[in-house]
Amino acid sequence: MLSVEEYHNQFLDYLENYNPPNSPSNLYDPVSYILRLKGKRIRPILTLLTCDLFNNNFKDAFDAALAVEVFHNFSLVHDDIMDEAPLRRGNETVHKKWDLSTAILSGDVMLILAYQLFENYSGDMFVSLAKLFSKTAVEVCEGQQMDIDFSNKNDISSDKYLKMIEFKTAVLLGASMKMGAIVSKASLKEQNSIYEFGKNLGMAFQIQDDLLDTFGVEEKFGKKIGGDILENKKTLLFIRANQLLGDKDKLRLIELYSTKELDETSKINEVKDLYSKCGIPEIMSKEIKDFTMTAFQMLDNINISTEKKEFLIDFGNSLMKRNI
Amino acid sequence: MLSVEEYHNQFLDYLENYNPPNSPSNLYDPVSYILRLKGKRIRPILTLLTCDLFNNNFKDAFDAALAVEVFHNFSLVHDDIMDEAPLRRGNETVHKKWDLSTAILSGDVMLILAYQLFENYSGDMFVSLAKLFSKTAVEVCEGQQMDIDFSNKNDISSDKYLKMIEFKTAVLLGASMKMGAIVSKASLKEQNSIYEFGKNLGMAFQIQDDLLDTFGVEEKFGKKIGGDILENKKTLLFIRANQLLGDKDKLRLIELYSTKELDETSKINEVKDLYSKCGIPEIMSKEIKDFTMTAFQMLDNINISTEKKEFLIDFGNSLMKRNI
Repeated sequence: MLSVEEYHNQFLDYLENYNPPNSPSNLYDPVSYILRLKGKRIRPILTLLTCDLFNNNFKDAFDAALAVEVFHNFSLVHDDIMDEAPLRRGNETVHKKWDLSTAILSGDVMLILAYQLFENYSGDMFVSLAKLFSKTAVEVCEGQQMDIDFSNKNDISSDKYLKMIEFKTAVLLGASMKMGAIVSKASLKEQNSIYEFGKNLGMAFQIQDDLLDTFGVEEKFGKKIGGDILENKKTLLFIRANQLLGDKDKLRLIELYSTKELDETSKINEVKDLYSKCGIPEIMSKEIKDFTMTAFQMLDNINISTEKKEFLIDFGNSLMKRNI
Repeated sequence: MLSVEEYHNQFLDYLENYNPPNSPSNLYDPVSYILRLKGKRIRPILTLLTCDLFNNNFKDAFDAALAVEVFHNFSLVHDDIMDEAPLRRGNETVHKKWDLSTAILSGDVMLILAYQLFENYSGDMFVSLAKLFSKTAVEVCEGQQMDIDFSNKNDISSDKYLKMIEFKTAVLLGASMKMGAIVSKASLKEQNSIYEFGKNLGMAFQIQDDLLDTFGVEEKFGKKIGGDILENKKTLLFIRANQLLGDKDKLRLIELYSTKELDETSKINEVKDLYSKCGIPEIMSKEIKDFTMTAFQMLDNINISTEKKEFLIDFGNSLMKRNI
């Protein structure tokens, strides 16, 4: 196994040499642009390292890793239109730098380019990768739609919220790992176990992201704390608090989530106090721990060395180590 | 072989029973909506009848035919956003009836659903169909981008224009037929010949559409004559006239294509007169005939009965019979 940083660098080298067609340039320039913005590249790294887990052949997984990254960037380009976001990773979004038509069409072609990357594998492998990819891509679209739908609703259940983040975020992490397993010809049982490992770790990661957005330490989290509260975003914290608070506090929370009169710091602090009052930080920490444990238990079904299992556990823990 | 009308009805029956997932409804309702608007269904009809050409097994091609139709409708939904079109087939477009986000995301999921329909075929066939589909879909995106690029340019060559309509329209007709050939296990030579047949017929059809838009008879064409002229659309008629007219007439044509002062009828008539002056109707008719003949010549490479070849020739001629 390499280190996570080494997989990252290996992937960046491969990405550097990936050249989609260049004409018409108005179609393909945005593809190169978005793919080359700095990112964490978690998904392709997962694909590469999973390949090494089973067969020490991570270079065979470059095209699958790239497909996952191209797909992820397709979803960013289209999501940024829907969110009317001006910036992505500190740079202008495609629809701002170019225009709406360009962002739609370049996104579309990226989705197709992702499928074409699987053509570099043999017939059976192509079929497995493309089927998994389609299933995952449909779920990502469904997750995005659920997220849009939720913004207009007040009565979202925890289960529905968890399904939303599972589809919008977690399944692609599971699929990224499963693709590495497919390429290295792991057994079906191992493919499915590593998928569940990735998916559950993805759930833990997303819930932690929500928790840190409210209760994190700014210097460690890297983003301004309280953003979700200011956007009135109905995260799992809000949903659970809504279920747990007494009538009076609950009314106040809903009021805080609809008023625009309070100054930012007061609003953040008052919501945080209500969350703390009903034990949200502890409840969320337990939820994160449960998903992480479910992920780690999947490793029992996988026939790899103890060192490799420890590598995965270290990797999982390092993702979760971003302190509150 | 059935009649074209019977293939149409067979396809509509199959479409009626096609049920994409129904939740989240905001994602899938637009899919059902756009697929069920009345259309000519030329592409899926081509897939079904091609299957019968080689193996009399058109029912095997239902899912490939449906994939082609789902893809075509994906492109309509996204193109309508780019064109800011309020109506499609006399009904509200998806982005008008719902909103921009819905139209983007529902379009995205249709592209993926199209790929998933190929999962109903065996491994080798799945690979062939998906590869052809990806290649075609990329070309359709490139054609759409060229079309957008051309609207801001005055110096488009005929070759570039022909490449644009080849990619935007003709390749999907070729691919629709080739998919029928793949499903009926025709030889590679026959697959490629029927692709070229469909593509060249598509070129003829598109050029004829442009010609009829200006020189057609309204009752027969079914649309208002002169629409392209009023939209200042740079069709092959405009491009060729630009090459053929003397300096003075050429300047006037360009002037007519930028002025908004003339009343509609005067503008249409003056452009038509300029086109007629340099023989555009005859030149276009020859172009249409040449593409049609190229299509028909492809039949020499295909080992099917004379009756079936006559069926294809009749079908081609019937498409071209919409009189000037």
